[in-house]
Amino acid sequence: QHTLGHQILLELHDCDVELLNDVQQIKSIMCQAALKAKATIVTEHFHHFSPYGVSGVVIIQESHLTIHTWPEYGYTAIDVFTCNSKLALQEAVQFITAQFNAGIATQHYVHRGK
Amino acid sequence: QHTLGHQILLELHDCDVELLNDVQQIKSIMCQAALKAKATIVTEHFHHFSPYGVSGVVIIQESHLTIHTWPEYGYTAIDVFTCNSKLALQEAVQFITAQFNAGIATQHYVHRGK
Repeated sequence: QHTLGHQILLELHDCDVELLNDVQQIKSIMCQAALKAKATIVTEHFHHFSPYGVSGVVIIQESHLTIHTWPEYGYTAIDVFTCNSKLALQEAVQFITAQFNAGIATQHYVHRGK
Repeated sequence: QHTLGHQILLELHDCDVELLNDVQQIKSIMCQAALKAKATIVTEHFHHFSPYGVSGVVIIQESHLTIHTWPEYGYTAIDVFTCNSKLALQEAVQFITAQFNAGIATQHYVHRGK
């Protein structure tokens, strides 16, 4: 059986700390990333935590992108999940990694529903 | 350094096929699961695809739960992600697995931001 879901777990360390706390900028980056992957955005929801940190999700026709940031550690955890193998996931991942100016970027590819 | 994010990737096969296509029931299950984990729900968004399949996210104060279903394969991919190690993730996972009456359930625990 083929893979139904394609998921990248992206770990970004040593990021731009101010950006990690900027909910509007992060929303913009994640929505742009979805479009770079050629996804169709259904809706999004982002929020800022007190005292710091941002969480957000972009729901796409083809599944989702999520982000959680820890400015105090210069770290963010990003997931890109799609049910359409034709989407350009690496375009999204490379864009996000560059935007956060990450010093260390690691990604794990997970096949869902094999 | 300790783990910042705790994520369970839950794979459910041989599920109740009608349930996998019922957006209202799935929304109810995922929100109940969040509460069983002792999470605080911020918002949720679920939608039904044509001709079949459901996607949804529950944003919790402590991160997120997501679900994507493939009724045609009896399969659903669920993620439970939390930045609070005190949440009862297994309560949520066991509840979801039972609700979908899954014949095969596998979970992968991922430590994020180690």
